[in-house]
Amino acid sequence: MQPKGSSPLFAADAWQLASEQHDNSNTLLEETLFALANGYLGTRGTLEEGSPEEDVSCEGTYLNGVYHSEPITYGEVAYGYASHNQKMLQVPNGKAMQFSLEGERIGSHHASSSRRWLNFKDATFNRDMRWQSQSGKQITLTSRRFASLATPNLLALRTYITADNFSGRIMLNSALDADYGFSADKTDPRAGQLNMADSLNLHRVAVEENQLLLQHQVKDSTFVISTLVDHHFSQSPVSVSFERSEKCPALTYEFELKQGETLIVEKYVLYHHRRQGDLADMAVQQQQTMQDILGQGWQSLLDVHHSKVSDFWQSSDVEIEGDAPLQQGIRFNLLHLFMSAGKDGHSNMGAKGLTGHGYDGHYFWDTEIYILSFLSATNPDIARKCLEYRYHTLDGARKRAREMSHKKGALYPWRTIGGDECSAFFPAGTAQYHINAAIAHAIRHYYQASGDWAFIRDFGAEMLFETARLWLDLGHFNPRNGGAFCIDGVTGPDEYTAIVNNNFYTNAMARSHLRFAVDVADKLKNQVPVVFDRLCKQLNLQAEEINDWQQAAEKMYLPYDDDLGINKQDDSFLDKKPWDFASTPAQHYPLLLHYHPLVIYRHQVLKQADVILAMYLLDEAFSKDLKKRNLAYYEPLTTHDSTLSSCIHSIEFAEIGEYARAYEFFKDTVRMDIDNRHGNTEYGIHTACMAGSWMGIVNGFGGLRIRHQQLHFAPHLPAHWTAFSFHLHCLGRRLKVRVENKQVRYELLQGEPLRIFHHRHPVMLQPQQPVSVELKTEALL
Amino acid sequence: MQPKGSSPLFAADAWQLASEQHDNSNTLLEETLFALANGYLGTRGTLEEGSPEEDVSCEGTYLNGVYHSEPITYGEVAYGYASHNQKMLQVPNGKAMQFSLEGERIGSHHASSSRRWLNFKDATFNRDMRWQSQSGKQITLTSRRFASLATPNLLALRTYITADNFSGRIMLNSALDADYGFSADKTDPRAGQLNMADSLNLHRVAVEENQLLLQHQVKDSTFVISTLVDHHFSQSPVSVSFERSEKCPALTYEFELKQGETLIVEKYVLYHHRRQGDLADMAVQQQQTMQDILGQGWQSLLDVHHSKVSDFWQSSDVEIEGDAPLQQGIRFNLLHLFMSAGKDGHSNMGAKGLTGHGYDGHYFWDTEIYILSFLSATNPDIARKCLEYRYHTLDGARKRAREMSHKKGALYPWRTIGGDECSAFFPAGTAQYHINAAIAHAIRHYYQASGDWAFIRDFGAEMLFETARLWLDLGHFNPRNGGAFCIDGVTGPDEYTAIVNNNFYTNAMARSHLRFAVDVADKLKNQVPVVFDRLCKQLNLQAEEINDWQQAAEKMYLPYDDDLGINKQDDSFLDKKPWDFASTPAQHYPLLLHYHPLVIYRHQVLKQADVILAMYLLDEAFSKDLKKRNLAYYEPLTTHDSTLSSCIHSIEFAEIGEYARAYEFFKDTVRMDIDNRHGNTEYGIHTACMAGSWMGIVNGFGGLRIRHQQLHFAPHLPAHWTAFSFHLHCLGRRLKVRVENKQVRYELLQGEPLRIFHHRHPVMLQPQQPVSVELKTEALL
Repeated sequence: MQPKGSSPLFAADAWQLASEQHDNSNTLLEETLFALANGYLGTRGTLEEGSPEEDVSCEGTYLNGVYHSEPITYGEVAYGYASHNQKMLQVPNGKAMQFSLEGERIGSHHASSSRRWLNFKDATFNRDMRWQSQSGKQITLTSRRFASLATPNLLALRTYITADNFSGRIMLNSALDADYGFSADKTDPRAGQLNMADSLNLHRVAVEENQLLLQHQVKDSTFVISTLVDHHFSQSPVSVSFERSEKCPALTYEFELKQGETLIVEKYVLYHHRRQGDLADMAVQQQQTMQDILGQGWQSLLDVHHSKVSDFWQSSDVEIEGDAPLQQGIRFNLLHLFMSAGKDGHSNMGAKGLTGHGYDGHYFWDTEIYILSFLSATNPDIARKCLEYRYHTLDGARKRAREMSHKKGALYPWRTIGGDECSAFFPAGTAQYHINAAIAHAIRHYYQASGDWAFIRDFGAEMLFETARLWLDLGHFNPRNGGAFCIDGVTGPDEYTAIVNNNFYTNAMARSHLRFAVDVADKLKNQVPVVFDRLCKQLNLQAEEINDWQQAAEKMYLPYDDDLGINKQDDSFLDKKPWDFASTPAQHYPLLLHYHPLVIYRHQVLKQADVILAMYLLDEAFSKDLKKRNLAYYEPLTTHDSTLSSCIHSIEFAEIGEYARAYEFFKDTVRMDIDNRHGNTEYGIHTACMAGSWMGIVNGFGGLRIRHQQLHFAPHLPAHWTAFSFHLHCLGRRLKVRVENKQVRYELLQGEPLRIFHHRHPVMLQPQQPVSVELKTEALL
Repeated sequence: MQPKGSSPLFAADAWQLASEQHDNSNTLLEETLFALANGYLGTRGTLEEGSPEEDVSCEGTYLNGVYHSEPITYGEVAYGYASHNQKMLQVPNGKAMQFSLEGERIGSHHASSSRRWLNFKDATFNRDMRWQSQSGKQITLTSRRFASLATPNLLALRTYITADNFSGRIMLNSALDADYGFSADKTDPRAGQLNMADSLNLHRVAVEENQLLLQHQVKDSTFVISTLVDHHFSQSPVSVSFERSEKCPALTYEFELKQGETLIVEKYVLYHHRRQGDLADMAVQQQQTMQDILGQGWQSLLDVHHSKVSDFWQSSDVEIEGDAPLQQGIRFNLLHLFMSAGKDGHSNMGAKGLTGHGYDGHYFWDTEIYILSFLSATNPDIARKCLEYRYHTLDGARKRAREMSHKKGALYPWRTIGGDECSAFFPAGTAQYHINAAIAHAIRHYYQASGDWAFIRDFGAEMLFETARLWLDLGHFNPRNGGAFCIDGVTGPDEYTAIVNNNFYTNAMARSHLRFAVDVADKLKNQVPVVFDRLCKQLNLQAEEINDWQQAAEKMYLPYDDDLGINKQDDSFLDKKPWDFASTPAQHYPLLLHYHPLVIYRHQVLKQADVILAMYLLDEAFSKDLKKRNLAYYEPLTTHDSTLSSCIHSIEFAEIGEYARAYEFFKDTVRMDIDNRHGNTEYGIHTACMAGSWMGIVNGFGGLRIRHQQLHFAPHLPAHWTAFSFHLHCLGRRLKVRVENKQVRYELLQGEPLRIFHHRHPVMLQPQQPVSVELKTEALL
């Protein structure tokens, strides 16, 4: 077990995360936590005036799905290696604003008081600051910013600046900065490296009254991006000067303020990109959008943005009563998930959302296994968009399958933005064939929640079939193992073991994938034979092949150890030397930063849930006793060096009734980023872990499982909580569940009447007629 | 099985390799084959005048053990990865000479006849050429060069140039070129990339009458190199001009020739390096050496060089009568091995010798398992020097062991020059822990051949103990496997399988290593207790640890499959899907250039001998039937994509009496480079394969095995040969064995009387009294 983070850095408010700290020790962390995004654009919570030089700060504004392609250098290359990395692009920073008074820069770092906070209710980043010049002139500055959830291209900033005790001139330098970078720790493979100059070619710069324009061509790619800034002031400046710099065009204004007077400055930044296109044409359209924005004005723009956030809370809020830090933590997490999720069908959610350049902004299986678990059950429309993204990259997955010598089918990349494999270390990348199963699982889960048959028919089936057929070529019916279907040479979720035979998780998930593909094929054939026939023709899919899927699923080998009575993580895991935890100093975690992969690989040690994750995802395939034995064996071998681990352990410990352990893992999950428990939130949030905190509530303490297409709950209220509640979209209905001290209230908010199960006892729910039942103390199983 | 090379490119001469080809299709190949070396300096067989532009040529002169250190770039880095590559350095090309007549360049490429040949008897590269100018003036040019085996710093060239049918002026531009490079195919991981400009900083250039000097500091290293050229002419030039270029200083001479007159030009190039030092001081010493060289003169220099080569043939020649191509092939191979071997105790033998930049000039296990097999039995003094090199890099191996988290012991690098691990892909690099066993095996083999106890006492024991103790930390006594000693997470010799548990070869070699270490410890303790105690103190080695080695050896797990009755290559190999050879097109070999490693890893397919290699090296541990079954199972799964494979298969097929197959593999081995059978001799010769051809004669058709410290022969004469013979240094004696049609003649050339075994029957050998015995037809086993 690794050492846990220290005491909380932030006060526990239910609807905000606020900081009044003055030192610079947490600057990078705050920049991540205070980041704003809307699924398209994301910007770190850096301050408008930037950071003093002595401070370590990381500027960053990103567009989801927009990347720079860069050749991967290998010390020793081999056939089929990923050739290029797709790195999330840094786009110009439109937040840049420096107020000054008589040559002195106004900013938080020399302020007498400064408070910054993320408001969860309206997804705004705010600041209140009081500042004094050396001659005693006092300024009060209040600012607010949001990345509009109604107009995804818009970042809006408003600043109020008051001359408290003097009359005089205030200067404002407002810039569009395309010359920032950051060099992260190169020895940490989890940190990305980004540098704007490496990725952007300037196409055009324009500076006009109140406006700044930068247009760029992304190097080694066809992407073009256009960034337009406009300003609106509560009073006219007394002077304006222009700085037509290619790297950082700027406008400098001078305002005359009377004592007690407040100047309001609004800055609107529009980001647009195209996969390829005419930048001149884009500029024209962008101007029209800007005029529209200015016409609407700040309050109206904020109102529609706020209303989108309110809708989100309406469908997704989780209440934890009696535990303020966890209440704050989970709302913080859910808001970031909402802000980070790609919503256009051509983007997804990075492991770090849009809050930092960690992992180069790549998408992993995190979306499908963790994040879509939350989105499908609260915002199925967004979940569908994330799955459509995978559909739109299906051709890339087909190409990758050919590169990997599979004659048919599709292999999704382990890490990517645009759809090409970007993993530069295949044993912990391409070898994770379970990515295909993850996508199939997410499709099944989304369909379960939404009942969206049209999606299956139009997109899902094709993805399912193309990914399912790959298993048959990857694995084989092994005569030496009684004809069981075996899958060799893969890596499971636990990256502390690599390239093994019959990874239990992979095989079990492949079985589920194959069975679902067979079911969908049957249903499609029966319900829309024309569509089925067309698809079969298109994919050259024969009935025999679908029969093979069935056979492989039925004969899938799931390694089990008779002596220990547990599932084997893979064929050889249990035969390895156990890791010597007693001799591992606390500072040697995470192991991956202190031991060569070979040292880790040859020991029984896990980075994260593997068999345990299968237990959660494929719940029905395990007996209660087997779950207990698996947990008892594997958890003590698990370092939880991955943030994907604690949530799954929380859920599974809850399931077997070990609530104290469940609670500890849940706390770790919920407060992962706020408390910077893994010490790397500086590089960005951990979106999968955030989604895991929702799963911890709903599937953990709520005890939700879907068994035989029915909802089973087994709620448990942790000792010092007074209540918790959550919303749920499932089987085409919307529900709210509230767990209190003595009772559980189930409410069918929307949809047809539904029979659910409370600790195995049926409860009939009618629309708008909440049912309260007794809270039992027994565990789910 | 991969397709074999096409028909021979060279005439089959017993003592030379000659080419009269004019086209440029084989230029790179000839440059490799005609390379000269003396263990310290090596230079490719490029022509003095270079190559016309349309030709693909690769210049290269190298100093053994001298390298340029270059950071390794990883797409995804992890703890403990090799940080720098040590690339064999390109040093200035002192061969460069361009003769011209009336502005026309004289060279092989526009010659009316040109013959180049490597003379095996004196290790010289020679050329005869006739050339005509556009106006019909004819030149005859004869040249000769050698890398002195008596004076390792010296490369000497002599050219005779005759004005056949005219009187007139001949120009000579003689240069020292430090501005050449070559860009190899970047998609082939076996090809190295070298570029002089990246590695050398000029320190000093000097051009004086007849002399050229270049002194360089090697970038990112403390190495300094100094290159001095001097000339001697049979007549004085009528003019000289100087070109003091930093990249390519040169002298241009003009000579007046009468019709029929011959000008003789001698060029002497001295290469010196120091690990660090004063270049001015080096220049002074180099000048003194040059004066000495000039004082001796061409013929005297050539004579002492020739005498060294004659000595080599005296101790090492192999005769194959009745098969001219194989006679030529094996002598070509042996000469190259002699020329390539480092002889100073601080260098070794690269996989490509000093003939090209393939594998960046790195040393691998090839030296210990293949090359020292030959050298120990023919030139034990050189074998000792190669082992001393390993002793001198023992501290680096200790450091590497610490990086790999082993608390004690030494782990030799998989590939290196200076002693640091240079492998940029650890699954086929650092994971090959069997490198330690290879070094132990070579020490044992050298000791067996030479009886050199002083080496064991002073160097060998320390290496053995430090490498032996690593196995105990690497492996573990596995209670799930009856307490057997298991070694997990390693890669065996066959790189088409990686990171497996209980690789048979590794475990078997570790057992042999541990047993030998225990034996040496016992002997040292008994014979020189003071030395033993001092060493134990130095290494903090306790009696219990040596006892642990014994235990691990006794309990070593050697995987065996009862059903198939064969040794398992590793725990999981036999459970994988067999490779589909029937569907693999001929052009898809070698597989590594056409399939992703994961595709290869998950199939039963071998690149090279693995279990079969263990059978050869650890002969006594296998029954005859087991050897047959292993061969029958593994050979059909082996692509022999590695040139290390065919020789071992030749020996083992000979052992079980399948002589036709043995002969085919032997032919492939012997003619590997001359016929360019793997299509990559352009990058350099295959030294291990060359040594394998010697093993094919001695251990294959000679049937030599050392069992219980006794020599066992079981000779077989391939069908169309009339005889073969070889020399042998073993058990402190020198022997000659000649196998004829009906009989075998054993001759003890030197040393005490010896009882040997001929097909299990004892034969007593007395000095200088050859014994002839009947040639049997039965196989060794």
